[in-house]
Amino acid sequence: MKRIYLFNEGNATMKNLLGGKGANLAEMTNIGLPVPQGFTITTEVCREYSDLGRLPDGLMEEVKEAMRYIEEKSGKKFGDPTNPLLVSVRSGAPISMPGMMDTILNLGLNDETVKTLAEKAGEKFAYDCYRRLLQMFGEVVMGVEANEFESAIQKKKHDYGVETDQELPPKAFMELVEEFKSIIKNATNKEFPQDPNEQLRMAIEAVFRSWNNPRAKVYRKLNNIPDDMGTAVNVQMMVFGNFGDNSGTGVAFTRNPATGENKLYGEYLINAQGEDVVAGIRTPKPISELEKDMPEIYQQFVEIAKKLEKHYKDMQDIEFTIENRKLYILQTRTGKRTAAAAVKVAYDMVQEGLITKEEALLRIDPDSVNQLLHRQIDPNAKLDVIATGLPASPGAATGKIVFTADDAEEKGKAGEPVILVRTETTPDDIHGIVESQGVLTSRGGMTSHAAVVARGMGMPCVSGCDALKIDLIEKTITVGDKVLHEGDWISIDGSTGKVILGKVPLIEPTLSNEFKTILDWANEFKRLQVRTNADTPQDSAKAREFGAEGIGLCRTEHMFMAQDRLPIVQEMIMAETKEEREKALQKLLPMQRSDFYEIFKVMEGLPVNIRLLDPPLHEFLPNIKELLVDIAILRERGAPQEEIDEKERILKKVQALEEMNPMLGHRGVRLGITYPEIYEMQARAIFEAACQLKKEGVNVIPEVEIPLVANYKELERMRERVEKVAEQVFNEQGVTVEYTVGTMIELPRACITADEIAKYADFFSFGTNDLTQTTYGFSRDDAEGKFMQQYLAEKIIKYSPFVVLDFDGVGQLMKIAMEKARNVNPDIIIGICGEQGGEPKSVEFCHRIGLDYVSCSPFRVPIARIAAAQAAIKEKMGK
Amino acid sequence: MKRIYLFNEGNATMKNLLGGKGANLAEMTNIGLPVPQGFTITTEVCREYSDLGRLPDGLMEEVKEAMRYIEEKSGKKFGDPTNPLLVSVRSGAPISMPGMMDTILNLGLNDETVKTLAEKAGEKFAYDCYRRLLQMFGEVVMGVEANEFESAIQKKKHDYGVETDQELPPKAFMELVEEFKSIIKNATNKEFPQDPNEQLRMAIEAVFRSWNNPRAKVYRKLNNIPDDMGTAVNVQMMVFGNFGDNSGTGVAFTRNPATGENKLYGEYLINAQGEDVVAGIRTPKPISELEKDMPEIYQQFVEIAKKLEKHYKDMQDIEFTIENRKLYILQTRTGKRTAAAAVKVAYDMVQEGLITKEEALLRIDPDSVNQLLHRQIDPNAKLDVIATGLPASPGAATGKIVFTADDAEEKGKAGEPVILVRTETTPDDIHGIVESQGVLTSRGGMTSHAAVVARGMGMPCVSGCDALKIDLIEKTITVGDKVLHEGDWISIDGSTGKVILGKVPLIEPTLSNEFKTILDWANEFKRLQVRTNADTPQDSAKAREFGAEGIGLCRTEHMFMAQDRLPIVQEMIMAETKEEREKALQKLLPMQRSDFYEIFKVMEGLPVNIRLLDPPLHEFLPNIKELLVDIAILRERGAPQEEIDEKERILKKVQALEEMNPMLGHRGVRLGITYPEIYEMQARAIFEAACQLKKEGVNVIPEVEIPLVANYKELERMRERVEKVAEQVFNEQGVTVEYTVGTMIELPRACITADEIAKYADFFSFGTNDLTQTTYGFSRDDAEGKFMQQYLAEKIIKYSPFVVLDFDGVGQLMKIAMEKARNVNPDIIIGICGEQGGEPKSVEFCHRIGLDYVSCSPFRVPIARIAAAQAAIKEKMGK
Repeated sequence: MKRIYLFNEGNATMKNLLGGKGANLAEMTNIGLPVPQGFTITTEVCREYSDLGRLPDGLMEEVKEAMRYIEEKSGKKFGDPTNPLLVSVRSGAPISMPGMMDTILNLGLNDETVKTLAEKAGEKFAYDCYRRLLQMFGEVVMGVEANEFESAIQKKKHDYGVETDQELPPKAFMELVEEFKSIIKNATNKEFPQDPNEQLRMAIEAVFRSWNNPRAKVYRKLNNIPDDMGTAVNVQMMVFGNFGDNSGTGVAFTRNPATGENKLYGEYLINAQGEDVVAGIRTPKPISELEKDMPEIYQQFVEIAKKLEKHYKDMQDIEFTIENRKLYILQTRTGKRTAAAAVKVAYDMVQEGLITKEEALLRIDPDSVNQLLHRQIDPNAKLDVIATGLPASPGAATGKIVFTADDAEEKGKAGEPVILVRTETTPDDIHGIVESQGVLTSRGGMTSHAAVVARGMGMPCVSGCDALKIDLIEKTITVGDKVLHEGDWISIDGSTGKVILGKVPLIEPTLSNEFKTILDWANEFKRLQVRTNADTPQDSAKAREFGAEGIGLCRTEHMFMAQDRLPIVQEMIMAETKEEREKALQKLLPMQRSDFYEIFKVMEGLPVNIRLLDPPLHEFLPNIKELLVDIAILRERGAPQEEIDEKERILKKVQALEEMNPMLGHRGVRLGITYPEIYEMQARAIFEAACQLKKEGVNVIPEVEIPLVANYKELERMRERVEKVAEQVFNEQGVTVEYTVGTMIELPRACITADEIAKYADFFSFGTNDLTQTTYGFSRDDAEGKFMQQYLAEKIIKYSPFVVLDFDGVGQLMKIAMEKARNVNPDIIIGICGEQGGEPKSVEFCHRIGLDYVSCSPFRVPIARIAAAQAAIKEKMGK
Repeated sequence: MKRIYLFNEGNATMKNLLGGKGANLAEMTNIGLPVPQGFTITTEVCREYSDLGRLPDGLMEEVKEAMRYIEEKSGKKFGDPTNPLLVSVRSGAPISMPGMMDTILNLGLNDETVKTLAEKAGEKFAYDCYRRLLQMFGEVVMGVEANEFESAIQKKKHDYGVETDQELPPKAFMELVEEFKSIIKNATNKEFPQDPNEQLRMAIEAVFRSWNNPRAKVYRKLNNIPDDMGTAVNVQMMVFGNFGDNSGTGVAFTRNPATGENKLYGEYLINAQGEDVVAGIRTPKPISELEKDMPEIYQQFVEIAKKLEKHYKDMQDIEFTIENRKLYILQTRTGKRTAAAAVKVAYDMVQEGLITKEEALLRIDPDSVNQLLHRQIDPNAKLDVIATGLPASPGAATGKIVFTADDAEEKGKAGEPVILVRTETTPDDIHGIVESQGVLTSRGGMTSHAAVVARGMGMPCVSGCDALKIDLIEKTITVGDKVLHEGDWISIDGSTGKVILGKVPLIEPTLSNEFKTILDWANEFKRLQVRTNADTPQDSAKAREFGAEGIGLCRTEHMFMAQDRLPIVQEMIMAETKEEREKALQKLLPMQRSDFYEIFKVMEGLPVNIRLLDPPLHEFLPNIKELLVDIAILRERGAPQEEIDEKERILKKVQALEEMNPMLGHRGVRLGITYPEIYEMQARAIFEAACQLKKEGVNVIPEVEIPLVANYKELERMRERVEKVAEQVFNEQGVTVEYTVGTMIELPRACITADEIAKYADFFSFGTNDLTQTTYGFSRDDAEGKFMQQYLAEKIIKYSPFVVLDFDGVGQLMKIAMEKARNVNPDIIIGICGEQGGEPKSVEFCHRIGLDYVSCSPFRVPIARIAAAQAAIKEKMGK
């Protein structure tokens, strides 16, 4: 068994054996980069160590052998008082576990070698290095409490009357070295080992030991990392950028990480160490100036940067150090970038022939694409965040506070930017919402009225921000000790849930040509169709612009909630007889028809899936609690009996319709069964609109969707009714339109009996919001505000199942349903319309289990297109 | 293809070919009973008829052949004016479709043969027969409107000034015959066929045609009877019991159908037809008197009855007719009987060696056993039913109306029988409920507080009777135009939901020795263990008496609702800090411990499954609507601010805990995760009680059940906590008790991921109430009051899935869960504790899919034992 690999013996594929860091150092060494010499002790040795409880026999001999190689290459010698080699010892597991295990720097220093270093690099530098070694070694290897060293330093600064470590004079560091040695002695009853080889042995053992320290164990458990994976140990020559004016250190991106521009981007400091760049005490210079300071080094760096990009085929984020006019590359990794930069870099690299279109597509983080589609808060702005609510609808908005929909409408129409602030919104608020920049509510979850309406409109919304105490009478918001009034400026970020005091600068979204091209590439590769959830012609048009290939879900209830219709809908609900109800429905018919007419027109040539009425009827009636209180007050005040009677009439109906669990109540197809006239009116509106357009030469493809089917008989009967209405309308209109009938699959029972249901369905659309609620027994609104946060924090669940599909539960039910359905009806079209349909991981899952389409809100269509392409590409690659 | 079977050519197994009636007539003929001669035209001919649209060629020749056989045997001749044979033509499908198809009697009569019949049996009889033939033939065969004949009869009675048909003189019947012939002629433009063979042909064709009449088609669709099954046609010689004093007719059971006593039981009438017995105009004589009237006939009948019992191995219900001292058996079928009779007959027949124990067990309708365990309303009582609610808890009760729990307690303790009438009950009412005879509520479903508590106590309850307007202030109940007051007598039947005005006589339940023996036999055969759902020592003792083999579900929340504890529970919930909450829990600990102590003691040696707290905490707090109204009123009245503040403090907590869908909310294990101290207190109470009993030498077998697990991590963590508490208690007490930890499986996700969950579970208990709610997306309380009735009426579902397990949906999820669980944990114990666990069809399903036990309310334990035995026996028989 080979226990030790020199950096030039390994490569990037050997992560399991060498750990992530070791494999990368080896890779860089092998492509000829000037990496400080070193070697890696394998993860297998870690397992040996765990089994034996000590380092295996002979290991240190092999380490010495490897050290000799470093010594040769560096021309320095470990422990040599005249020309000492210093090394670092670092852990490096196959899977990154940031901060979990230990590092020791400057090994090789002792009372002798520190003197040589002092001669070469100055006393302050040398003794600072030494005291750092003592401190790290003391803590990590010998188990001394960290605060013992820290308080010694604090005391020292106090004694010398300075603020920072760097202000201490050399003498102080020399004193600290002696004090630290005493601390170690006192705490452990042992001396700090002066023998560099002993230092090295103890440091290696300490790193292996740290694999099983409690926080590393907990971290592995939470992240499902196997305990027997083990860590590797990297031993590497130290290099110093603070050896004088011929030395320096810096970081650079091979391209601009903000814009993607193909130009070296970074900064450096002469005579400094890496931490000085980060600390921000001295202002670093832009990388371009290195060309003047050290032209040959700059040239070398430029070439290395190009080489690295070519090798890794991606933008790199490189750390480097110059020690005495010698350039060392310490680390390179894929550079983090903004969404805009990601798009530009991916596009450019295809043009440069560096990567393929497939690779370019895989480079885009689909979630980040959101940034490109919505206004954002300028990342450079300083924000006064006063509260955080739920990120209910992405994008940022800034405006003056208003408390009523009427005020929002009035001021909004007058051109004033306003944010509508409500405890929660209702259908009566719509006219105010449309004129606002954004909506902020103190109650309600991600599926509250405000959230759903705002997402549909692509308007920012923060909901359920319960830190805000809203007083609608006084027109004030109280947050902690702040009180905001109507007209005060406020800003919200619907992507993060932040509520910000005052006006903030916003960045407008841009759909660059590069981005459009990449979206076109996505269509070349993806197999999934991407549709949209849209209830209005405006949303539909927006989605079509973003490349939606149809409507996957058009909810009709939002149409019922429009201000001019709600009274008629209420009339329909309050009807005591079928005849009364039909009279009200007759009034709704032309309105629904024109709704569908407009949407069909916008979506010409593409399928439009219309879901018949779904929510329980009490959602359209006044709130029962308010009614009860109103009536009690009217009684107390001795109001006229007629007034009380009228309220009580409404109350009676509301009470009759009230439900313990509306989610599981009288809704969906259950309404269709009990009030068939409602569905018949809707079907008539659909077919009349379709016929009219067909006569106008417009190609319409209606899909009629029956919600909440649990039992095939429900669909069988509703299908019969829909077909009957279609026949009637076609006869009346003298024209026929092709259409399909199907169902939303949103109950576990529908999945389990999908073979029966599929006999009556041309399509299935997985309604994974409700399917998740019933499968998990989670009421979304209740769960998100209450225990869900704790579940996420305690890692009982990894993601909210309402954001990322629950693959193990809901996903398995979907698979069962698809297999059963396709067995009896191979031509059935199967899609998803839950909110997860626009979430990349979920889109990939949908691709893998063989769905025909995903459907999501208009602004998530580009995200879904990219995610769908990535899924197809990954599958092709066998990933 | 043989198209026609003489009765002596068929047998009981040929139902598909001969229909039910035809096969039975053949069977009786073959065992030598004096059945009127006849033959059956097969169901295959019906299919031929449907295909051809006419009778197949040659059929009538075969019919004539068969008729010749009847003529020979009877010595009469079809259409012979001197000695005419009359026949009936009846439909008879393989599956009974009562009233759906047609029958024609007295075929063979015409203007000539009627005269011969008049000579033999009198004019009135003969012309009455003839007009019946005309009427039936006119309606069924020739399609004349029924009311044409009816109005002619009405007119005739009016003309002769009589009330009933029977009072009409012979002349009137003769006139009617002529009028009926005219009616037929006028309506159809055809004469009534005088040729008996033409009558027969047309009648046969009419019966085949009736297979496809609209009501038969609808009936088949609703009952899933295939359309191509077809009906057979039975042609049979007419016999008449009204040929004079040597004739008669009657019905008799071979044993007493009310008590099961082994003695002929029935009645007869001399010179009468079957319909006279039914009509009740003349009073029939008891069958025993036939011995005096016609000793030889009586003797023959007694022998036949014995023969039939022996042949069919069950009590028979026999129709017979005596025509001129010749006995004919018209029909025999298994006799309907009371539950008590069923038990006695089954027991006796085993003793008589007639049937085996297995057969005896299969004879008991497990559902009917309910009657034997509860008081019942005397079936002979005349009832004034004023409303019907939900049959929430079986048994009947009668008492005086009271409107408050306090009144119920006071009067009940004073020995007055009272019925507690509330809009709905709350935990505060318990002290009144226990002193009542029964509970009646106007709101709430089968799982409302009143229903659950009453079922546990075996006390009658009718819930959700919304026809009752209850005024708690005036202390009145208004139903329609009736107003009842406090103290009025009222009765309820919790098995049917009936509410009855006044006092009614009740029958006390008896557990006969025969019944106890049969229950013992059940244990010999059943494989399923039968446990009980019980929350109190009383219920547990009752269940044990009924043979429960353990507790399958002990709900702890009901303990929390006791009057003396609720304030402490509320204190625990209102706590602002963990410390405050723990203080309140400390007070609850000794109470819980004594709960468990008592139950463990009663259940010594048997497993006791205790479910940790399940319901959302707001269920223990005051109603939010009442609070809101109270506060509004206090404000209006200018009440002191402190009083308002106190209410608002409670309101705030109630609002914070309020949920949109409590069923899917913050409950079950989610409470355990967020408030671990609650579950820890309960676990401690369980283990402390168990240790105490162990020290007293009592064998306890506790099972700790974690409710509502959706994700294995929930169970994993709770199991850890429970084990930790157990260890602590065992250390403190110096004694160890064996126990198990498991979970209720009540969410679809738990079923789908059962393999993961089973790794942490010693047992699974299917909570099929909630599992049905989530699988079906039905909120039980909402569905039962609203659309469920319509779903049942329209046959979208056959049974409420809360009563009979939904085999296709919930049942399939159970199967998936069991397979997955046993794959990883073969020793896991799996049971069911939903209410379906005591329903016979569901028990059979549970047996077939391999559950280890079912658990049900104490009074359903005997039902479940019999059902479990039946399931095992049927399985062994390959049924």
